[in-house]
Amino acid sequence: MGALHEGHTVLIEEARDLAGESGVVVVSVFVNPTQFGPEEDFDAYPRDLDGDAGVCADAGADLMFAPSAQAMYPEGFSTVVEETQLSQHLCGVSRPGHFSGVCTVVLKLLNITGAQLAVFGEKDFQQLGVIRRVVRDLNLDVEIVGVPTVREDDGLAMSSRNRYLDGDQRLAATRLAYGLELAREAYFGGERSAEELLSIVEDTLAPCGFARVDYIELVDAETFRPVERADGDSVLAAAVFFGQTRLIDHVDLAAVECLEEEVPEEEMTYS
Amino acid sequence: MGALHEGHTVLIEEARDLAGESGVVVVSVFVNPTQFGPEEDFDAYPRDLDGDAGVCADAGADLMFAPSAQAMYPEGFSTVVEETQLSQHLCGVSRPGHFSGVCTVVLKLLNITGAQLAVFGEKDFQQLGVIRRVVRDLNLDVEIVGVPTVREDDGLAMSSRNRYLDGDQRLAATRLAYGLELAREAYFGGERSAEELLSIVEDTLAPCGFARVDYIELVDAETFRPVERADGDSVLAAAVFFGQTRLIDHVDLAAVECLEEEVPEEEMTYS
Repeated sequence: MGALHEGHTVLIEEARDLAGESGVVVVSVFVNPTQFGPEEDFDAYPRDLDGDAGVCADAGADLMFAPSAQAMYPEGFSTVVEETQLSQHLCGVSRPGHFSGVCTVVLKLLNITGAQLAVFGEKDFQQLGVIRRVVRDLNLDVEIVGVPTVREDDGLAMSSRNRYLDGDQRLAATRLAYGLELAREAYFGGERSAEELLSIVEDTLAPCGFARVDYIELVDAETFRPVERADGDSVLAAAVFFGQTRLIDHVDLAAVECLEEEVPEEEMTYS
Repeated sequence: MGALHEGHTVLIEEARDLAGESGVVVVSVFVNPTQFGPEEDFDAYPRDLDGDAGVCADAGADLMFAPSAQAMYPEGFSTVVEETQLSQHLCGVSRPGHFSGVCTVVLKLLNITGAQLAVFGEKDFQQLGVIRRVVRDLNLDVEIVGVPTVREDDGLAMSSRNRYLDGDQRLAATRLAYGLELAREAYFGGERSAEELLSIVEDTLAPCGFARVDYIELVDAETFRPVERADGDSVLAAAVFFGQTRLIDHVDLAAVECLEEEVPEEEMTYS
């Protein structure tokens, strides 16, 4: 959607790597109206095409594709691509219609570009799961590649929406990543109860009075259905409003289990 | 969906022609469960893979693609492609879910085969319009080609479902094409009122008591919305049950207007 930041740079660099010398790397920049709800921030969403063009070039992209809404949705546009299971949970509950907007535009972008491979950020892990499902279900010949979340030094997951935050909100927003990290440490220390893990995140957010929780959930990493006990297939995910700004973040407990197996405990850090 | 008849032969021959020497012609044969309603004829739908293979070979196809339902809809399949405007009329009213089943499977088949061009019968003219819309909206790089309805000597449009008809029903079914033809002649003679044109078809069907009309409508050829007065953009379409067998047929009044311009009246026939 543009307003490209360092997280996007990493996506573009990954695409450049995977495409090799002969491949063409296209970055789509399109603030897609159909994935915003009527009360959401479509009009306010940051737009910076000139800045984006610079980021694309610096990161090694060959093309930036920034179509108009009119070109993407011509008169009489009447087709919707919908994922009906994974989309029902987490962000799908508070953002009805969001994922069908995403699925439809992603399918269009994949068809327009003729992409053989497409790179998405793992920060939007539900979106990534939904897109993988649609690509499989509709037999698209496209490889979907996920790239780990890129974070600010203080842990905040990079997002174009971070630009909305004022000083106090920006400070408070770090508590989302921190709360998730504390819950991950608790899981790693043996805590398995969803209730306990969620309350760690809630308690971390509580001191900043203006944080309004949309959801904090422990879910299965494949189905996104809530689970009561954590295991290596679980993801702890949250969406929280800081003022008007809704941010999402998550920790993947499977990743912790991998770490647990591979790295001697004394060498591990949880910064 | 298989149970291939002469109408399909013409489609395959057209594909063969368009594909040329170097092209590969694939015929999909798949009785798609998701486009049948719960009360419809999925189980009874005629299946004849051996016969179909012969028809494909004789008509010049290179491949017949006849997947299992399990291959097309693996566990956890959860994606739906929906057209939301054209699908709301005509068959969409009496067959809820039908066109989303069609759109989803057609998109899958186009992606699986990697088709550059796909041939459909104009008999299912609403389906053809819906597919053209989805292909445009989702930016598929596929040319959709329509082929005129192939008819039996007595005018009945060819359909795999004609196999269901007993002798009396088969006889009665000809009255559908005949009624539409009479209405077309009336249009050609100057009649423009939808009401009058529809009643010509109704009156033609009335003598066979067991024909149950699902719909007879005069609609705009682009939007499939009902119109009150006929012009060159109108289609007169009908779906009628003969016993348990639901048949569809239509006449395109635009085609008549073309004819009107090109052919001297004394040379025209309406057989």
